[in-house]
Amino acid sequence: MERIRVCVVGATGFAGIEVCRLVLGHPNMELAMATDRKEAGTRLDAVYPSFAGACDLELSLPEPDTIAQAADVAFLAVPHTASLALTPELLKRGVTVLDLSADYRLHDPEVYEQWYNTPHTSPELLSQTVYGLPELNRKGILALAERRAAGQAVLVSVPGCYPTATALAATPALSAGLAGSDLVIADAISGVSGAGRGANARTHYCHANESVEAYGVAKHRHTPEIEQTLSEVAGRQMNVVFTPHLAPLTRGLLSTVYLEAADGVTAEDVQAAYEARFANEPLVTVLPAGSMPSTSSVFGTARAQVGVALDARRRRTIIASCAIDNLGKGAAAQAVQNANIVLDLPELAGIDMPAPLV
Amino acid sequence: MERIRVCVVGATGFAGIEVCRLVLGHPNMELAMATDRKEAGTRLDAVYPSFAGACDLELSLPEPDTIAQAADVAFLAVPHTASLALTPELLKRGVTVLDLSADYRLHDPEVYEQWYNTPHTSPELLSQTVYGLPELNRKGILALAERRAAGQAVLVSVPGCYPTATALAATPALSAGLAGSDLVIADAISGVSGAGRGANARTHYCHANESVEAYGVAKHRHTPEIEQTLSEVAGRQMNVVFTPHLAPLTRGLLSTVYLEAADGVTAEDVQAAYEARFANEPLVTVLPAGSMPSTSSVFGTARAQVGVALDARRRRTIIASCAIDNLGKGAAAQAVQNANIVLDLPELAGIDMPAPLV
Amino acid sequence: MERIRVCVVGATGFAGIEVCRLVLGHPNMELAMATDRKEAGTRLDAVYPSFAGACDLELSLPEPDTIAQAADVAFLAVPHTASLALTPELLKRGVTVLDLSADYRLHDPEVYEQWYNTPHTSPELLSQTVYGLPELNRKGILALAERRAAGQAVLVSVPGCYPTATALAATPALSAGLAGSDLVIADAISGVSGAGRGANARTHYCHANESVEAYGVAKHRHTPEIEQTLSEVAGRQMNVVFTPHLAPLTRGLLSTVYLEAADGVTAEDVQAAYEARFANEPLVTVLPAGSMPSTSSVFGTARAQVGVALDARRRRTIIASCAIDNLGKGAAAQAVQNANIVLDLPELAGIDMPAPLV
Amino acid sequence: MERIRVCVVGATGFAGIEVCRLVLGHPNMELAMATDRKEAGTRLDAVYPSFAGACDLELSLPEPDTIAQAADVAFLAVPHTASLALTPELLKRGVTVLDLSADYRLHDPEVYEQWYNTPHTSPELLSQTVYGLPELNRKGILALAERRAAGQAVLVSVPGCYPTATALAATPALSAGLAGSDLVIADAISGVSGAGRGANARTHYCHANESVEAYGVAKHRHTPEIEQTLSEVAGRQMNVVFTPHLAPLTRGLLSTVYLEAADGVTAEDVQAAYEARFANEPLVTVLPAGSMPSTSSVFGTARAQVGVALDARRRRTIIASCAIDNLGKGAAAQAVQNANIVLDLPELAGIDMPAPLV
Repeated sequence: MERIRVCVVGATGFAGIEVCRLVLGHPNMELAMATDRKEAGTRLDAVYPSFAGACDLELSLPEPDTIAQAADVAFLAVPHTASLALTPELLKRGVTVLDLSADYRLHDPEVYEQWYNTPHTSPELLSQTVYGLPELNRKGILALAERRAAGQAVLVSVPGCYPTATALAATPALSAGLAGSDLVIADAISGVSGAGRGANARTHYCHANESVEAYGVAKHRHTPEIEQTLSEVAGRQMNVVFTPHLAPLTRGLLSTVYLEAADGVTAEDVQAAYEARFANEPLVTVLPAGSMPSTSSVFGTARAQVGVALDARRRRTIIASCAIDNLGKGAAAQAVQNANIVLDLPELAGIDMPAPLV
Repeated sequence: MERIRVCVVGATGFAGIEVCRLVLGHPNMELAMATDRKEAGTRLDAVYPSFAGACDLELSLPEPDTIAQAADVAFLAVPHTASLALTPELLKRGVTVLDLSADYRLHDPEVYEQWYNTPHTSPELLSQTVYGLPELNRKGILALAERRAAGQAVLVSVPGCYPTATALAATPALSAGLAGSDLVIADAISGVSGAGRGANARTHYCHANESVEAYGVAKHRHTPEIEQTLSEVAGRQMNVVFTPHLAPLTRGLLSTVYLEAADGVTAEDVQAAYEARFANEPLVTVLPAGSMPSTSSVFGTARAQVGVALDARRRRTIIASCAIDNLGKGAAAQAVQNANIVLDLPELAGIDMPAPLV
Repeated sequence: MERIRVCVVGATGFAGIEVCRLVLGHPNMELAMATDRKEAGTRLDAVYPSFAGACDLELSLPEPDTIAQAADVAFLAVPHTASLALTPELLKRGVTVLDLSADYRLHDPEVYEQWYNTPHTSPELLSQTVYGLPELNRKGILALAERRAAGQAVLVSVPGCYPTATALAATPALSAGLAGSDLVIADAISGVSGAGRGANARTHYCHANESVEAYGVAKHRHTPEIEQTLSEVAGRQMNVVFTPHLAPLTRGLLSTVYLEAADGVTAEDVQAAYEARFANEPLVTVLPAGSMPSTSSVFGTARAQVGVALDARRRRTIIASCAIDNLGKGAAAQAVQNANIVLDLPELAGIDMPAPLV
Repeated sequence: MERIRVCVVGATGFAGIEVCRLVLGHPNMELAMATDRKEAGTRLDAVYPSFAGACDLELSLPEPDTIAQAADVAFLAVPHTASLALTPELLKRGVTVLDLSADYRLHDPEVYEQWYNTPHTSPELLSQTVYGLPELNRKGILALAERRAAGQAVLVSVPGCYPTATALAATPALSAGLAGSDLVIADAISGVSGAGRGANARTHYCHANESVEAYGVAKHRHTPEIEQTLSEVAGRQMNVVFTPHLAPLTRGLLSTVYLEAADGVTAEDVQAAYEARFANEPLVTVLPAGSMPSTSSVFGTARAQVGVALDARRRRTIIASCAIDNLGKGAAAQAVQNANIVLDLPELAGIDMPAPLV
């Protein structure tokens, strides 16, 4: 079988290099091109010595024409607005796009403008874009697969890291009607790679090491994305209070959510709802009652692990915790999972190994 | 001025050794005795090589008579129930006790029995014990100082680490009447030293490194202690949902609390209430609006830093985050702060240095 | 193509679980059986939650008969002496053995007895065992492949972690005759997983974190193994002074070696010799002059990176540094590399991905 | 007693802020002024939130006149050449200088020019400067104390971090004549704070975490300083091969040195020589035979711990390992130790506490 030719745009960012790694290990894909605007002309393994011996690609400029010539599929691991500029050009040229940026995640362009302080320049694409969280939305992604099989280039908007973990933590409670109010408190903790490759005071080892801190309180841009997803799942407007934290690990993200329990809900109901909701999901594991997930268990993978409990003592509250790798299920590996579905490959191709000890 | 002779009981645990360290650096105290039931006869610096050159004490058995002979004050850094056995004996012999265990924290012996699964054997002491959180309860501790000046041995029950940080995070909102409901969600993150010195699968470096996970969900023993304190502050029964997490750092604890805002409360109200509440507290810093604290800023100290925000978007919520060192303000340094007050020393004696870079 | 059935003996140790992980991701192997003497009857993913969703095997007892029934190949990730007991039984039953223990690494059973304080009970196997360091000894391993193709069960003794990195660091200098004396000083640093899964004072997070220390000075058991290999490479008796250190990382091993430079040797000679020696080795990268390797670049992989310099200032000294993953090229991944060769599979099957960001 | 007024120049670098911290905790010193050329006008606690509540100083410009007005003593925690510009001006104005830069460490200005690529502009000061390693050179520092008591401003050049640890590791062997050759191999490992406060690719958490690597091989600027010190100790020209490594910890430095043992030297001789050499040194602990030091044991302190072994197997080699805190005994705390001596204070004033658990 011929390998699908892949271009990774923004290959030197942390999400981009992880897509490159997964594509190199993918049985059905070939890393045909990797771009970086600033380091074009440099070999990828000069930027990431870990790629020495595994990849001899030179970084290119992200030009739509050359990408379309080299690749069938492009993963865009770029900052917001960069995808707005590139995606329509790639689709026009027949390149299927897995967009890891925030540009096509929010259905409403006004909400986008409000949170990202910039106009949305291709709102017409939003209606045909699919939000790529397969565990919530596999049908939508499969519909893209059909369109692609029919010859069309398609666009998947890959979810953010916090929205992925928070959605997986809250979804079973919401879809089973176990929540008694419209408020979800999401308290999340991310590794430092979530802050990106930029070297600054906050990402300095001597600041980040031995430090836990909240940031972006009451204003993080993933908030409307989480709210959009949970509202869809619940079938009503949900209101999210979201607090992200940084902790001293490179990769890993844990989102712990709190929902008021509806009257009469028992711990057994909750556990059963969670197990049922993800029973057929190959990448999501619901842990046995009494267990909570560790980020290290999903390091480097497309997997998520979820644990749930009911605090039945006074103000009855469902507490669910979901662990993912912010660069894995939270970015690159989920992008590959989506690509597998869209390209009619086995959903776990190239992303099925368990996490290494770390 | 003569130095006050101190005995540290349970000196080889993580809280115990931190008390020893602080006493060695204290201008008015002398480490006269250190005990450990299992390692009696061994030198302290054989167990903790960091003490080589600074302390040549040999560990003793924790016998009330020998403690009373050697010391004026005893810090008990022991597991619960061990203090129940020892404290009454020490008080009888005229030794003032700073108890870092949980044994005298809960005012109601039935609540103690319920959460610790063991009867409280000296409930008669509870009424004269003071809960040693000076920022909430300095008057009570000063009253002990008077009793001690009058010749009585007194008992301070030093708060738990999570209760300390959670109380400091929530108190200004509660005491200023800014909370609109009786529910406090407390989501906290602790370093691994919080799990104690015991070597087990969870404290193994290769488990704890690169891992964040919740534990003790809906059943952690600090829950009733937090609830007791917040209810006293609020002047009504508060209900606490508490989820602790472990993160890969040795020391440090962050508690982020969520409270529904009362009608009409503004962000400025919240910030002002927090600043006012701790304006005269030498060890608590309220950060400027927009800033949130890092655990590293209080490493090794008796200090706490607090940041607060109002999420005013939909379901108006006060979000406050307090950083302490779980072994510092969360245990040993707070014990020394209490001792300073009880012994009529300057409150910051021996605990005034800022945190080192870590 | 049918998959080769694999049994991992000692599957719950850190090297064992890494073999399991690699076998699960291997295109030509199937994890048919995993054993653990203490946890037999438990599911592997109950011990390592990272395997949830990826592997539903239950751990078995390591009985030769059942292993031989289930598997064509066994990886022994067991302590020394355990392999002495098991290997002959497996070979007898036609099972090819990749032994990760130290039991068959030393050619001379007397040296084994001297360093391991126990008699070697199957010295007759030593002559037919091959030391599985493919970059030094590929011919020997290929000869096993022929014997296996002819129907014989064969035994590969997989090198230790320190010997692997030290051999790769020193070999080019020795084989090119650039060393002016018979002394090699090897100063190495390992992650904590090298100390094994046992929970003890040294592997406690709060001891290992923020700590670097030497251990086993002048008596580490890898010393004779290093000496044996370097002497073979040099064609004369080499004398090794070896000092291992522990540093706060889970995985990763760096060995920095010092050799007196022979007269007239230049920095260019040294760099050229290193590049030439490994030019055709797919898993070893020699970095450009002026660069030295990081352990993170080879995390989780079978790769090694080597950098070299000549200190030409006074006492001319060759300084070479080799980075591997102690559980990867230093144990499990090298075992799979050997298995690939012996089983006539592509040498990099299942072990070709670059390291993730970590 | 009146407190000595101190100015810290370069207060926002990692060594500078550590001096500030120690001065704040010093019973006989007062932090009168802190300077930073770039952040003058900002409060120190805005740059380091850990200082909130402990210090309300605003950063000033490093002007000689204002420094001389504010302070009796200045600690210069500045890059090389900055001290060349400032030190003569301060001495002229009667300010005693503790210089933490490299500018006055090398006795020979030509060696300085060769390694630092810049001319030495005040070579006339070199002869009256004392190299501040009290354990090797207390007499010289005491002589400065006398000059200062007589009214003169004096200059102490505080040693580098690697030279301090390496000198302490090698000195007993050299001064006791136990070394059989003139070669010292020093293999050292430092925490990331040694790379300074600058945010760059190497100090990014996601690069430094889980990574060990050599750097500056055969060209690190501490090499001539180490060589100068060891040659003085040995009474003959010593030749040093020095390789520094970075490891994932914020603070801590371990230097492991290798020296050929002179004929007939036994392990007992070596241990005895080390114990004797440092028997009266309050800040240096020689560990019992068989033990090696951990960096965590000296975190945040002025202490050093040394372990030594003889590898007597083949090529008899003395292996000694010294642990210090690179910012403590390796910089700031050693500067304070020197200041204490020069100012006729107790040598351990303000630097006597043992390390915290870290």
